[in-house]
Amino acid sequence: MSRRAFLTKSATLGAGAYPAMLALNLLPAAPAHAFKLQPGSGQGKHVLLLGGGLAGLTAAYELRKLGYRCTILEARERAGGRCWSVRNGSTTQETTNPSHTASFDNGLYFNAGPSRIPHHHQLTMHYCKELGVPLEVYNNVNEGSYYFAEGKGPLSNKKVRAREIHNDVRGYTTELLAKALHTSQVDTGLSPEDAAKVLEFLRAEGGLDIDRLYKASARRGYVEAPGAGARVGKIANPYRLADIVQSGLLDPDFYNVAEYTYELQMTMFQAVGGMDRIAQALQQRVADCLHLRAEVTDILNQPDGVKVTYRDPQGTHELTADLCICTLPLPVLSNVRHNFSGDVSRAIDFVPYIQTSKIGLQFKRRFWEEDEQIYGGITHTNNELTQIFYPSYDYLSQKGILIGYYNFNEKAKAVGELPYAEREQLALRKGQLIHPQYPKEFEHSFSVSWQKQPYSLGGWALYTPEQRQTLYPALLRPEQRVYFAGEHTTYLTAWMAGAFESARSTVAAVHSRLSEQRVAYPSVKPVSN
Amino acid sequence: MSRRAFLTKSATLGAGAYPAMLALNLLPAAPAHAFKLQPGSGQGKHVLLLGGGLAGLTAAYELRKLGYRCTILEARERAGGRCWSVRNGSTTQETTNPSHTASFDNGLYFNAGPSRIPHHHQLTMHYCKELGVPLEVYNNVNEGSYYFAEGKGPLSNKKVRAREIHNDVRGYTTELLAKALHTSQVDTGLSPEDAAKVLEFLRAEGGLDIDRLYKASARRGYVEAPGAGARVGKIANPYRLADIVQSGLLDPDFYNVAEYTYELQMTMFQAVGGMDRIAQALQQRVADCLHLRAEVTDILNQPDGVKVTYRDPQGTHELTADLCICTLPLPVLSNVRHNFSGDVSRAIDFVPYIQTSKIGLQFKRRFWEEDEQIYGGITHTNNELTQIFYPSYDYLSQKGILIGYYNFNEKAKAVGELPYAEREQLALRKGQLIHPQYPKEFEHSFSVSWQKQPYSLGGWALYTPEQRQTLYPALLRPEQRVYFAGEHTTYLTAWMAGAFESARSTVAAVHSRLSEQRVAYPSVKPVSN
Repeated sequence: MSRRAFLTKSATLGAGAYPAMLALNLLPAAPAHAFKLQPGSGQGKHVLLLGGGLAGLTAAYELRKLGYRCTILEARERAGGRCWSVRNGSTTQETTNPSHTASFDNGLYFNAGPSRIPHHHQLTMHYCKELGVPLEVYNNVNEGSYYFAEGKGPLSNKKVRAREIHNDVRGYTTELLAKALHTSQVDTGLSPEDAAKVLEFLRAEGGLDIDRLYKASARRGYVEAPGAGARVGKIANPYRLADIVQSGLLDPDFYNVAEYTYELQMTMFQAVGGMDRIAQALQQRVADCLHLRAEVTDILNQPDGVKVTYRDPQGTHELTADLCICTLPLPVLSNVRHNFSGDVSRAIDFVPYIQTSKIGLQFKRRFWEEDEQIYGGITHTNNELTQIFYPSYDYLSQKGILIGYYNFNEKAKAVGELPYAEREQLALRKGQLIHPQYPKEFEHSFSVSWQKQPYSLGGWALYTPEQRQTLYPALLRPEQRVYFAGEHTTYLTAWMAGAFESARSTVAAVHSRLSEQRVAYPSVKPVSN
Repeated sequence: MSRRAFLTKSATLGAGAYPAMLALNLLPAAPAHAFKLQPGSGQGKHVLLLGGGLAGLTAAYELRKLGYRCTILEARERAGGRCWSVRNGSTTQETTNPSHTASFDNGLYFNAGPSRIPHHHQLTMHYCKELGVPLEVYNNVNEGSYYFAEGKGPLSNKKVRAREIHNDVRGYTTELLAKALHTSQVDTGLSPEDAAKVLEFLRAEGGLDIDRLYKASARRGYVEAPGAGARVGKIANPYRLADIVQSGLLDPDFYNVAEYTYELQMTMFQAVGGMDRIAQALQQRVADCLHLRAEVTDILNQPDGVKVTYRDPQGTHELTADLCICTLPLPVLSNVRHNFSGDVSRAIDFVPYIQTSKIGLQFKRRFWEEDEQIYGGITHTNNELTQIFYPSYDYLSQKGILIGYYNFNEKAKAVGELPYAEREQLALRKGQLIHPQYPKEFEHSFSVSWQKQPYSLGGWALYTPEQRQTLYPALLRPEQRVYFAGEHTTYLTAWMAGAFESARSTVAAVHSRLSEQRVAYPSVKPVSN
């Protein structure tokens, strides 16, 4: 158990560790007086936080528990950064596009930024619990959604259910392996007895018949559903393996092996009402030290403190603090004047960020549920859309917002270059190939290309293994009085957990320095692995 | 689209079909007057429904839309039959056990009967929508849950995460097949170009390395989670294939290929607040014709009607009706006097029902979430428990009810023979091997063995293919004035959808007969398969 393991370790630490552990909730329940923070236990020190995204909000929230004075500077009119749910009235103004306001129905939203929480991201789960943000399942796995290969091969432009492709491919590959094992053509390294059990397993795994051949299987669905009386149900024939291959449905960037990825395995969650409920809950806790519309222009380490210059609607201001935690995304920070060392400056300028785009499409009818029995999950395409996300909330209700595309890199760049109206047209034109209901049911759209969002300028940090060696380390040390935090300072890039982990790690380092106590930040150890 | 397909077909039907179609919601929206039912359009006929489970409630609900007079006789003090959620105050009195009352905390429940709705069970989804029963995801797939082999092989008594076994097995089998394909030892029937693509696919599918070998993979989880700064994360070594085999984790009755089953594929749902919200919503609509505590003793076809005798707390009564729909489970019906033909009588007496048992265990802390990051889903065991179901509601809250075992056949029979207290002891003793937190956190239990429940006497009908030929057909025809409905008259046995499908199919048949019009009951055709 991680708490216990930590406490064992922490027995060797000085007393100064306790307030930090308490703030970080790493201690078991204890009498309130035992570890109660005294006013001023933050030593009257002032910590400046640049960026009011999840990392900045969380760092301020934790530092204030320890008694520090905090100031958060956030350039946008809202906190939360990329943790942003688009609702009626949400506005965007991209670097190459004019201002645009969402006109969705009340109650409907889509998550323009993070939309999924892996169950094993313990800090994200922890904050949702501590902040009282209710969660619901994000239905990342749905066997009823589609694979759609536009203009390619024998299955071109055909809506293939995930269950069809998954079970056909599993059937064919287990059949091939069973054949190889049965005829002892492959050395398994197993005893004959164990090999026989693997052979039997393959039959169950693939849904093979008694002769270990893959034929029709109910797993891939019915042509006529079973029902009452004589309605025994009619099973369809599988697709041919060659057809599946030639339509590109096995291409690694198409077949959703993504579902196997550790971070995308079920159970996944989302915040009820929109992922930014998490940011809003944090914002409430630190509202009195949060300055919105405050755009940082200069960060200067000075002998006796750190001086930050920012602009807000009232003019230009300077602030000094004992320490600073900078959570600005690197492409944004790259445009800020600073006196950092060459190593840090190089990391800020050269760590690449992903380009990524989403569009929310409001429809007046949830046709994907009513007509096609798709409840949540993702349709995968080989075209510009890449993915369609179906909403994992308000099932069976009247209206809904689909994420009409969620794409990356070149595809995301291309749609990002378009005006909003042309993005909408693209999403509708391509989406209509899959869902012909689009033209009749469509109401409103709202699109976000993160590389075009002024105070983000990218999706998330995208290090190559080499850049983890050459650029990344510079961001892990404090640059004199400036610490760096945010998903880009973690191995959890792109995830909210990266913001949380880096915030807490940095808070521990800051507290350690200001309290002149050694404060260990324990790694979270997965249980029973 | 099923509505459209049906309407095309129905153009050949007589006008009498319309009210039935209207009642069954198979018609598109039309001016209210066009098909409005007139008082008395049910021809003043009286239909008697035996059993107030989902089939009986639904049949009455639909018949009353058509204007028929209905009477439902239900032996229990509650309607819903096997669609039963156990809450504080729920009582049970099994055939060989005394009365027992649940003392769970308010707000907590477990579904003693059906607990999952497949997204493609369109009628179940339809009724939830029509009745306003909100649904939430039942998280049937959870890669964080366990496989647990008690006392078997090298992985004996080890909590193996589903993700570990799934990814290890996928890794080893794709590695073996890749080896066979690469050395052309197996004829794929594919062109060399396509075969090369399959080979490349296998590498992605299995998470193989550049040499197509399965080694460590992040998909199976971390020993140390990745995090902020230098915490790159540490991946564990996979289990040996031989160890997995020898611990029986690939045995077909253990490895959860169940997840591939059409009916168990995500997306799955449950009713918010307990599955019996569906039964309760139906009950509300037919409350005025529902007689509770009315136990049927005799069903007699007579020349001018059907006569049913029942007992209630006031004494013995007789009722006559034009027609009767009997939804009693066959083991219960077998104890009712009747004058049915030999074929029907034989089916009633000989269709086997599954024995199945569940126990709800209330714990004062959701340790499976807090300590082990298991949110919903199922742990599979090779011991008496067979399965542990984690609750798919109120995530992150304080207390919760686990289903401590959900087993079938011999294992279910064995626990069914025990007194309640011994069932609890068994669930705790065996569960503790997996979750050592059990003794400290346990509060209350409530167990249900369906074969011991007086008005069920079994889980669901369990036909062999042969019995589908010999016994089943007798139940599909009306026995003079008596129709049979319920999951046992369908190819959707065990599912609520079976109750709904049979109810609607029987209503169509009854209406066709009483209105002397031919009314077709269209099969529901899955879309785009």
